Amino acid sequence: MAAEIEFLPRGTVTSPEGFFAGATSAGINKRADDKPDLAVLFSEAPCLAAAVFTANKLKAAPVLLSQQRLKEREKFGAVVVNSGCANAYVGEQGLIDAAELAGLVGEGIGVAPEDVLVASTGVIGVPLPMEKIRASVDRIILARDGGNQLAKAIMTTDTFPKEAAVRVKDGNVEFTIGGAAKGSGMIHPDLATLLGFITTDAAVEKGFLQKALKKAVDASFNMISVDGDTSPNDMVLVMANGLAGKVSPAPFERALEQLCIYLAKRLAGDGEGATRLIEMTVTGAASQLEARAAARAVVGSSLVKAAVYGADPNWGRVMAAVGRSGVEVKESKFDLAIGKIVVVKAGKPLPFDKSAVIKLLKGKEVPLSVNLNLGSGQATAWGCDLSPEYVTINSHYMT
Amino acid sequence: MAAEIEFLPRGTVTSPEGFFAGATSAGINKRADDKPDLAVLFSEAPCLAAAVFTANKLKAAPVLLSQQRLKEREKFGAVVVNSGCANAYVGEQGLIDAAELAGLVGEGIGVAPEDVLVASTGVIGVPLPMEKIRASVDRIILARDGGNQLAKAIMTTDTFPKEAAVRVKDGNVEFTIGGAAKGSGMIHPDLATLLGFITTDAAVEKGFLQKALKKAVDASFNMISVDGDTSPNDMVLVMANGLAGKVSPAPFERALEQLCIYLAKRLAGDGEGATRLIEMTVTGAASQLEARAAARAVVGSSLVKAAVYGADPNWGRVMAAVGRSGVEVKESKFDLAIGKIVVVKAGKPLPFDKSAVIKLLKGKEVPLSVNLNLGSGQATAWGCDLSPEYVTINSHYMT
Repeated sequence: MAAEIEFLPRGTVTSPEGFFAGATSAGINKRADDKPDLAVLFSEAPCLAAAVFTANKLKAAPVLLSQQRLKEREKFGAVVVNSGCANAYVGEQGLIDAAELAGLVGEGIGVAPEDVLVASTGVIGVPLPMEKIRASVDRIILARDGGNQLAKAIMTTDTFPKEAAVRVKDGNVEFTIGGAAKGSGMIHPDLATLLGFITTDAAVEKGFLQKALKKAVDASFNMISVDGDTSPNDMVLVMANGLAGKVSPAPFERALEQLCIYLAKRLAGDGEGATRLIEMTVTGAASQLEARAAARAVVGSSLVKAAVYGADPNWGRVMAAVGRSGVEVKESKFDLAIGKIVVVKAGKPLPFDKSAVIKLLKGKEVPLSVNLNLGSGQATAWGCDLSPEYVTINSHYMT
Repeated sequence: MAAEIEFLPRGTVTSPEGFFAGATSAGINKRADDKPDLAVLFSEAPCLAAAVFTANKLKAAPVLLSQQRLKEREKFGAVVVNSGCANAYVGEQGLIDAAELAGLVGEGIGVAPEDVLVASTGVIGVPLPMEKIRASVDRIILARDGGNQLAKAIMTTDTFPKEAAVRVKDGNVEFTIGGAAKGSGMIHPDLATLLGFITTDAAVEKGFLQKALKKAVDASFNMISVDGDTSPNDMVLVMANGLAGKVSPAPFERALEQLCIYLAKRLAGDGEGATRLIEMTVTGAASQLEARAAARAVVGSSLVKAAVYGADPNWGRVMAAVGRSGVEVKESKFDLAIGKIVVVKAGKPLPFDKSAVIKLLKGKEVPLSVNLNLGSGQATAWGCDLSPEYVTINSHYMT
């Protein structure tokens, strides 16, 4: 019998057993004074942890510090995260400040400083305002239902918090996976600083946890942007405290992937200035990797995104994006549909009901699908449309 | 003594000896009825030709046809080019129409149909309106000073024609290289359909001509966008009729590159909705290839482009773009300047005069430079800023 996976109402990163969170407004984020911008996630039982980090070669200090700690240490008790300042490209001071931040939090909650991980998002090139932080950390009150506070504290230009939790019943075992994420900042066409915090009370092995996270991220967060196009601060972290006992691998993997896809879709739909979500499915590719590359090329195309914003049925841009993605493709085998309306069959444009297509393009979710008819590789990518508002937001970030 | 290279006043694609051009309004381009949209470039002496084509795997019919002819034939007499319709993704009809178009032109000017090359730009997925074209070809009047007509006829959303010519005096030999190009359409952040037509009266060998063109394109047209991000129709063609006699290779290469860079900068500066030109120079890279990749990543970054539009001194985005370009980079060696104002030295942000930087960012040309301090590779890329107008233009292209 397959395990049951259920999304919890008001599910969040503290839904699994033993997790606590809290946040405060430390004044790091100058753009929104009263918004919480400093948060702590804590587990009463030490956690195994695994993470996927940015591919950017110039990484922010919190990424470097957390990467190192995950290599050197076995168990972790907490994560501290701030928005408003990326703590990136500030020289050696960055690592010093990130370590101090971890220490301040560790002290306050009785966890060894080295067992605290750190994440940041915000403006690059500005040091963390440590005086403000020192004066604020103690104000954070950890609560079992504090997940929503964390989800809000990590927001930058996000317009709503992204959080969810799934409960899995697998025979006699019941466990929960929760998560909070933020992305909007730069999510499209350049990748946002993407932060994801996943928690679980499932007991799993460390190697398995890392593999399961990588697999879930590849099918979710990595499908909302173009490979390699990553900010200095990107990080998706999973912490497992084992309080629910040992679980079977397959249902855990499936539930983790579902949760990550849910969060990734929310991130994609909340891209800066976005008015709709594009869901691009590629089937019939020579391999899954090729399907992913093709789908990502489409949702990463500014021209496709601008056309969707304008509900302009310019399907040639979808085809051109697949063509330049580098994957194997034959024009004479290329099928393209908008919703269920086939607009290209075997490389030939078909006459279609323009007003019906425009109606589809005006929906909250715009489903595009391509069949390359070459193999069995398939993948789905998500993106948002590109509106003039995106440019307005991003042209005055510092001034 | 080095050869003298001089840009000619009102230089254009017909400036070299023996070239003629003309254009007419065939009504292909529905968006601008009175604009010429069908042009012919003709040489009274048969030409050697070489070309660089799109890397897109789904190529338009005129690209496929011209590619094939360049492989099979030795000399060419003319090129016909239309705007308003890409003749791409229309099934087999595309090749039939492209061949008929070449035939119509060949007949009219007394050149074998197979010795006519074809290029198109415009909307994808719509067949060429052959009836209109058949009725219009004869209206084209070829003239020695018709280059400007061609430069105008190939425009789509370009706001001005791009054309130039250089005259080279190399000892006793004097020769001219002329060119016309168009790009704007989608030039940024996705590559436009880029069309470039280069002519010369220099007598050179075919293999050399191909190599010289590739080298010039790599330093110019390929530096205004991201590698591989190409439309189905991109084509840069050079035709050499030899009327000025044999020339030395080095001055020819240098002049060709200067001409291509001039045209490429004009294309970049006329990106849709663009208000300024970004000139990004990378030095100290591990290799020239890495310098090019890094420079292109910066001018291709929507975030950098939006920041320049808003004159927002958000230099961290430049650094992050280099970091994700995949090239070798060490934070502790990274220098970054805006104009002559150094904002990052050895990876550390320096205090800078914000109002002076904002003034630079508001100039017509915004000079950015990065020194990676790792090797001797250097390159310059050009791009435009990203304005809300870009999105507006691209969200209603078909409707």
